[in-house]
Amino acid sequence: MIFPSTTLALSGERFNVHYQIRVPDAKTARIRAQAICLEQTVEVSDALLGNDDIRDHVVGRIETLQKQKEDLFEAIISYAIETTGFELPQLLNVIFGNTAMQRDIRVLHLDLSESLLACFPGPRFGQRGIRRLLGAPKRPLLCTALKPMGLSPHNFAEFAHHFALGGVDIIKDDHGIANQSFTRFAERVRRCTEAVNRANEKTGHGCLYAPNITAPIDQILQRAQLAKEAGAGALMISPGLTGWDALRMVREANIDLPILSHPALLGSYTVTAHHGISHHVIFGQLPRLAGADATIFVNYGGRFPFSKTDCNDIVTGATGYMGDYPSIFPAPGGGMTLEKLPEMYDFYGDEVIFLIAGGLYALGPDLQNNVRQFRQWVETLTT
Amino acid sequence: MIFPSTTLALSGERFNVHYQIRVPDAKTARIRAQAICLEQTVEVSDALLGNDDIRDHVVGRIETLQKQKEDLFEAIISYAIETTGFELPQLLNVIFGNTAMQRDIRVLHLDLSESLLACFPGPRFGQRGIRRLLGAPKRPLLCTALKPMGLSPHNFAEFAHHFALGGVDIIKDDHGIANQSFTRFAERVRRCTEAVNRANEKTGHGCLYAPNITAPIDQILQRAQLAKEAGAGALMISPGLTGWDALRMVREANIDLPILSHPALLGSYTVTAHHGISHHVIFGQLPRLAGADATIFVNYGGRFPFSKTDCNDIVTGATGYMGDYPSIFPAPGGGMTLEKLPEMYDFYGDEVIFLIAGGLYALGPDLQNNVRQFRQWVETLTT
Repeated sequence: MIFPSTTLALSGERFNVHYQIRVPDAKTARIRAQAICLEQTVEVSDALLGNDDIRDHVVGRIETLQKQKEDLFEAIISYAIETTGFELPQLLNVIFGNTAMQRDIRVLHLDLSESLLACFPGPRFGQRGIRRLLGAPKRPLLCTALKPMGLSPHNFAEFAHHFALGGVDIIKDDHGIANQSFTRFAERVRRCTEAVNRANEKTGHGCLYAPNITAPIDQILQRAQLAKEAGAGALMISPGLTGWDALRMVREANIDLPILSHPALLGSYTVTAHHGISHHVIFGQLPRLAGADATIFVNYGGRFPFSKTDCNDIVTGATGYMGDYPSIFPAPGGGMTLEKLPEMYDFYGDEVIFLIAGGLYALGPDLQNNVRQFRQWVETLTT
Repeated sequence: MIFPSTTLALSGERFNVHYQIRVPDAKTARIRAQAICLEQTVEVSDALLGNDDIRDHVVGRIETLQKQKEDLFEAIISYAIETTGFELPQLLNVIFGNTAMQRDIRVLHLDLSESLLACFPGPRFGQRGIRRLLGAPKRPLLCTALKPMGLSPHNFAEFAHHFALGGVDIIKDDHGIANQSFTRFAERVRRCTEAVNRANEKTGHGCLYAPNITAPIDQILQRAQLAKEAGAGALMISPGLTGWDALRMVREANIDLPILSHPALLGSYTVTAHHGISHHVIFGQLPRLAGADATIFVNYGGRFPFSKTDCNDIVTGATGYMGDYPSIFPAPGGGMTLEKLPEMYDFYGDEVIFLIAGGLYALGPDLQNNVRQFRQWVETLTT
């Protein structure tokens, strides 16, 4: 059959997805790019389509196809913004839904149109907003985490108090600290916010405590609100565990706290060089689109195989042009130590959140003093 | 520092995750397995832990470590069930959260304990429940999809009517059909259910229409309920787009319709042979755990690089032992044609949903007749 000829009321506005395709030659690259155009939209063979608006406007369109090097090609494919229904899950679907099952295709970059960006909240605070909350001038921000799983809210509150007294900017829950019997969310949030806010009164600083609100879908907003009411200064969520739209939902709930995005379960999109979704998109552009104010990821040279290029690509995703969206903070962590700070500062500059957790505990039992050392390293670097 | 010595009230019950580790030798395999034990739980170096319940019970435990072949090892690592907080996102986190950022590690199989399984709903209908709804004896079920994106609810209802008259068992929305301006969810569901139910009255069959309820988190239940009220016979959702817990939420909402799980955006977990999460887990065990009654995936020999082994592994995930959970239907599709049915029947047997969409439209303009051919092929095979 040929599908019924269809005329659609479309705006004509399109958005671009940059795909890397690994194939031996340009002809094969074009065949695969054409397959993406169909797969991500109509999901039927070209032969079944009439000469109508579906063929002309709904099917993805190859805007450019260029050889990058050797067996790598970059195809820019555009889609009508209406294909997304202006909903985040369907936008993700158009970008990479079924094609995620194909080898040798990687999403490199999203170039979303203004009106598509306007459908999603983007960051509420961004870099500037977080600095304003902290009263922190232009310098790297200092972040640490409450660990390990198994300790009690009482333990964590004590740690948090010392960290805050020492002058850290942000204290987050470890992402594996959820709502376990040994650390119930409500009690932890109450104790830790109290401990941090008590320290803030002493120091005059505005250290932010970010509880982990990664939770069953129907409890996320509840936990976020509970955190807000308890006096928490920020929130952390792992969109790979909850789904991206849960981050969007928290952002749009007007809870008015900065949100840190954590990379749990997202690594599989980036691990294979020529498949998946780039670091730039998955740890930069997507968290920002969905409304995070900072994106946690693992630094090069730690215990994960992220390269300098990967980390740089995340920074460009977190800070590069995305319409009116503010830049968000890259927050590299994952096995960092104080000794690595000079090199990290060279690499990231001032607009970064340094996340050191295990490496901070390892300095010794006086957590307050450990944070002071952390601050001194950063102060030395920036003066 | 050494973390405060901690005594925990744990049940002693643990669950097992089978990881494949690709390394040159057994010694390195053990080092990497130990790293998983820490990374997935306490996320700190072993040196910081006291001799306490955190070290003894919270940290993952290598139960067995065996060479599979050449450079592949299989580690069975157990975790205390309490580490999951009995919440699905945190269970996923313990299984593979940060380790998803590591190369050469793949989750092969989940062996969840009875009490952990009891915390999640599992399938409401399963294979038997769907057969009961359809009044279908032991034979492969027939499924097709409404396509392509761009057509109107009116078009889809017409297709659905003919498909149902022809005797198909299940008609699902294409997974890219969401809530776009050209096909609003509410109107589509109303028209398509009416068309299918009208056909059912004529034929006496119980063809099920499964609208796609993949949506922003805060609208999913609303769409599911709207579908139920309109008289839809099933639901489809893409947990890769919504998050796994959204599927669990729909299942637990007591909407009392079978749920089909779609693989969109999940492919990246399986694409790389020695990384990620196996087909068995991601397309078999996880949909079943979260409450799907059928799992859609792409068949071997279609336009996606799934092998026979991959498909067989999905079947074992969908039907193998998982406590009291009923078996769910494997629903292979993705470029299937009638000519492939004999081989597929040899491979899958009776307990399968054959999903043919594009290949069914391609047979000609008389959709009712196309479905009749589809039925005839299956009837010939099974008699």
